[in-house]
Amino acid sequence: MAHIDIKQPILQKNDSMAAELRQRFAENHVFVLDLLASPGSGKTSTILATIDALRDEFNIAVIEGDIASNVDAEKIKAQGTPAVQINTGGACHLESAMIKRAVDVLDLERLDLIIIENVGNLVCPTDFDLGENAKVMILSVPEGDDKPLKYPGVFQVAQAVVLNKVDTMPVFDFDDGRFTEEVTSLNPQAPIFRLSATTGEGVAPWVAWLAEQIRSVQ
Amino acid sequence: MAHIDIKQPILQKNDSMAAELRQRFAENHVFVLDLLASPGSGKTSTILATIDALRDEFNIAVIEGDIASNVDAEKIKAQGTPAVQINTGGACHLESAMIKRAVDVLDLERLDLIIIENVGNLVCPTDFDLGENAKVMILSVPEGDDKPLKYPGVFQVAQAVVLNKVDTMPVFDFDDGRFTEEVTSLNPQAPIFRLSATTGEGVAPWVAWLAEQIRSVQ
Repeated sequence: MAHIDIKQPILQKNDSMAAELRQRFAENHVFVLDLLASPGSGKTSTILATIDALRDEFNIAVIEGDIASNVDAEKIKAQGTPAVQINTGGACHLESAMIKRAVDVLDLERLDLIIIENVGNLVCPTDFDLGENAKVMILSVPEGDDKPLKYPGVFQVAQAVVLNKVDTMPVFDFDDGRFTEEVTSLNPQAPIFRLSATTGEGVAPWVAWLAEQIRSVQ
Repeated sequence: MAHIDIKQPILQKNDSMAAELRQRFAENHVFVLDLLASPGSGKTSTILATIDALRDEFNIAVIEGDIASNVDAEKIKAQGTPAVQINTGGACHLESAMIKRAVDVLDLERLDLIIIENVGNLVCPTDFDLGENAKVMILSVPEGDDKPLKYPGVFQVAQAVVLNKVDTMPVFDFDDGRFTEEVTSLNPQAPIFRLSATTGEGVAPWVAWLAEQIRSVQ
């Protein structure tokens, strides 16, 4: 039986569009962050806390990827930040062609930072280049310390790892030493930021790191 | 450009193998449960609590689906229950061909219940029939009450919905009324079981429901 690889052509098409986007972002000095996480790990809350800390210095927009609904985009807009909703209609990840359509309605020239909230999923978004400058992975304490072992791919592609909901550490049996060891063995370069997006604890070092990345493309 | 549908043939192949499995399960009077949930929602803890409650009455085996690692299968085996690990090597869901290979190493004749722990993912496993009698969906309180709105598909295919980690309700801003309303509008028939797999709270009604399903195929 012939072997038909359906994944390779899809990725090639995605990557060539991503390369075009990357060039456009660079020309406009916009830093683009692709946020990956499970459903409910606090991507939207982390974005809101991040915008809150950086909005005085940078112009920010958000691209929201969801299977369905626009609740996240509404939360971002309520904070006064431009947000574009992408509904994938079932697909478990964003692709560069979707990002292109969203970027076309944004005013790239005046933006410093675009945050892409990918579909809640630890698997599918890993392979897809969206033209971003960095993928960042959020894990939340309630999900458990064994996730690097079970979903190594997403920890490997991340330029930084955020451990969210650290204020709930006393409620859950989360071994931070084990977690750090696993993440470091998968991805020795990635810094790990421990924070609680809702209480604000630990947000400062994370946004300081991100601000440094944004300035590096300006 | 021609439109090539890659999803349909894959699903057809999956479904025909699932139909064969379903017949084998029926002939052997085994009830098969496919558990769907996000990473870290407590699938394995729920399985352990379920086995603990039902092991005196039923012979149980577990099929563990993971991208990588065998930590979950080891936890199940440590409890004295047969467990078969499937590593999907990147795929975000189990398919019926994988289940067939796992079932071939189990002694179907003496089993009453097989629990399949699908890959942690709210999207991909939804479309794949594994020959199961029921798909059950687990959401945990820390993931948030907006998940039915954002991932409607998985709530629609579920025969029952488990809300896990209810002991953490005081720590999280989870609107149980909103959650129940959304689930009921997506899937009016599905019972919702509120429990904490780790404290044991609320486990009894869930296992009573499951026991009834198992007896119905015996």
